[in-house]
Amino acid sequence: MTKNDETLRAPSRRGFLKSGIAIGGALAAAPLAARAAAAEGDPAILEKKDWNQYLGDGVDARPYGHPSEFEADVVRRNVAWLTADPVSSVNFTPLHQLDGIITPNGLCFERHHAGIAEVDPAEHRLMINGLVDRELVFTMQDLMRFPRENRVYFLECAANSGMEWRGAQLNGCQFTHGMIHNVMYTGVPLKYLLEEAGLKTNAKWLLPEGADAAGMTRSVPLQKALDDCLVAFKMNGEALRPEQGYPIRLAVPGWEGNMWVKWLRRIEVGDEPWHHREETSKYTDLMANGKARRFTWEMDVKSVITNPSPQAPILHDKGFTVLTGLAWSGRGSITRVDVSLDGGRNWRPARIDGPSFDKSAHRFYYEFDWDGSPLLLQSRAIDSEGIVQPTKDALRAVRGTNSIYHNNGIQTWHVKSGGEVENVEVS
Amino acid sequence: MTKNDETLRAPSRRGFLKSGIAIGGALAAAPLAARAAAAEGDPAILEKKDWNQYLGDGVDARPYGHPSEFEADVVRRNVAWLTADPVSSVNFTPLHQLDGIITPNGLCFERHHAGIAEVDPAEHRLMINGLVDRELVFTMQDLMRFPRENRVYFLECAANSGMEWRGAQLNGCQFTHGMIHNVMYTGVPLKYLLEEAGLKTNAKWLLPEGADAAGMTRSVPLQKALDDCLVAFKMNGEALRPEQGYPIRLAVPGWEGNMWVKWLRRIEVGDEPWHHREETSKYTDLMANGKARRFTWEMDVKSVITNPSPQAPILHDKGFTVLTGLAWSGRGSITRVDVSLDGGRNWRPARIDGPSFDKSAHRFYYEFDWDGSPLLLQSRAIDSEGIVQPTKDALRAVRGTNSIYHNNGIQTWHVKSGGEVENVEVS
Repeated sequence: MTKNDETLRAPSRRGFLKSGIAIGGALAAAPLAARAAAAEGDPAILEKKDWNQYLGDGVDARPYGHPSEFEADVVRRNVAWLTADPVSSVNFTPLHQLDGIITPNGLCFERHHAGIAEVDPAEHRLMINGLVDRELVFTMQDLMRFPRENRVYFLECAANSGMEWRGAQLNGCQFTHGMIHNVMYTGVPLKYLLEEAGLKTNAKWLLPEGADAAGMTRSVPLQKALDDCLVAFKMNGEALRPEQGYPIRLAVPGWEGNMWVKWLRRIEVGDEPWHHREETSKYTDLMANGKARRFTWEMDVKSVITNPSPQAPILHDKGFTVLTGLAWSGRGSITRVDVSLDGGRNWRPARIDGPSFDKSAHRFYYEFDWDGSPLLLQSRAIDSEGIVQPTKDALRAVRGTNSIYHNNGIQTWHVKSGGEVENVEVS
Repeated sequence: MTKNDETLRAPSRRGFLKSGIAIGGALAAAPLAARAAAAEGDPAILEKKDWNQYLGDGVDARPYGHPSEFEADVVRRNVAWLTADPVSSVNFTPLHQLDGIITPNGLCFERHHAGIAEVDPAEHRLMINGLVDRELVFTMQDLMRFPRENRVYFLECAANSGMEWRGAQLNGCQFTHGMIHNVMYTGVPLKYLLEEAGLKTNAKWLLPEGADAAGMTRSVPLQKALDDCLVAFKMNGEALRPEQGYPIRLAVPGWEGNMWVKWLRRIEVGDEPWHHREETSKYTDLMANGKARRFTWEMDVKSVITNPSPQAPILHDKGFTVLTGLAWSGRGSITRVDVSLDGGRNWRPARIDGPSFDKSAHRFYYEFDWDGSPLLLQSRAIDSEGIVQPTKDALRAVRGTNSIYHNNGIQTWHVKSGGEVENVEVS
């Protein structure tokens, strides 16, 4: 059990009675009333669909499995008007349909600059060149001979929530916050490969490069590479998916997504940053005065309520209600998440449940007795360095509204009395 | 970083030199020699396949993603002669092709007794009846109103390694040990549902029942249910897969797989065990004297080396070699794994890397400098209660060879000088 065990126990039946929340009443009323009637009166409800009247598919039917047909709407979605062409665009993780902290591989959001490169691992190579004692080229088999690590990390696009800088735009957490996924990686610490090549004394920066047609490059300080970067080849146990950089990608924990170069084919070692396209005209933060912040790599402390949310309204009448969401920080772990039902006037601590790792998503819950009146839901995360997620207005006061990157402002959902939910802003 | 950080640092370049293992030499020789030549002489090797000469699929191509075509052999496999019909059979997780501790949903082994029930969650119900104050029927929406937990647990079939009781039979860890998977579950603690129904004072046992044509039932002691059982509805973040009990299954952490009733539709509360088919004629352990052990629910401490293994031979010449495997215990966590290269004569501690959870798989590594001579690989796990994984001979001395269940004996792989690997036994 976690450190939140005591909190968790509270909502049990006796716990509810103790705390004065009418769980018994709430559950016995509303839609749950139907079940008691059904149970006492008519066990035929169990026979309504005769799942148990026929044999299903055998163990030879699905060598590689897929979700139920009843889950056909649980998919990544793109927004056609957002970009000129889907080969240089993004789709979004359906956060409102997931739970826990692991994003299944088939639902991890995609961001490409030239479409999905289809790389044959037998032909793929990783070169390390530049300020090293000896330039090296590794096959996949070579990489398998270095020690490996397993770590769970979030990967968030710097532009996640970017459309929201100028006000509530997109109606659903899939679209406002879905440029994030959270995966267990297996990979070789980059420091081992660099040590194998031997770093020159003036080595200070790296330039990882992708094998796709975009030839994605980003300047990465050497210190970060030696700290915790991985050359990752597995996600959630199996090979990287093609859209996530198969056969290898760079993992740059806690830092913005496009530094996690996919289809990684080369790492150049240099003594200064390269100022390439994707770190000058893009992935810098244009301030109100026309100057741009650069090297804003670290992803700030952030959270979002995934249920209820515009794509996941409350489907029951008033009574006991489960609110849940995700929180994360590029600086470390999440120590606390607060939830407000009234647009930030009053805050109560949420229950964080499940594993807590550095630079990984955390799952939080807040169970409450909904009286059926409208709500303004907000969540506010605090990380292990004590940094508190700001309001959008506080962010705008400092950064203006020119940038599309690094919006970690508090999100507000307006729950109407009928249970529908809308993306709104409150001041 | 984990508690094994110091161990992990050791194999770095300087670490290798210090420890006297010729990592530099080993890597510079053998297949890695090719890379240095290529890097210095001819950068055209990077152009061999022109991944970067064309645009790939866009973000609208794969609403739900799938593995690369180059991973087409990473699949669950069944053994046709093992059972009369694939609707009551098993397939096996390809452990030798995975890493880390998470099993991706598409590769989790399947065991059905009447095929995969295809259940519509909108029509599905969970009934609790028997020795309760009020019998209840829950819809899926009802279940979503109870507090949830997120936990990573292994699920192992009691018959995993069962064919090996009488000697080395199956040539590959997928077949000898692949009736296991390890997943992050999201679910409602069963105790909350039982408390909602109200337990009679004479309640002692539960009978969970599946909605498939087999109507799978197992007797579960109430104490276990109140301790850590979950009614699980998500695995690795998304809905349970159909073959894993969609929309809900019972999670019985650390206990044998067929108690984790899939397509869970009813839980009867009683005062004594039911002695149904799957806990009498099956899932009991027949001893040498003809009597059967029963209620052998807890899965014992166990481990297996997944690489190298018969399906994953060593592909390089002598030199630095990464050995890896999995270890788990139904009693708690794994505190230590030892590895032997000489059939159990000498043991060295392996490096456990990645999260350590109770009743979850642990990933271990052992890096060594292979001199190219034949090896007899073994792994031996020790759990948090101090229980040591036994040899197969030690197990047979106590239990005989009549049973197919609960074989947690030490596995031996014979590595030949060419790198091929065979399943063998040593005494």
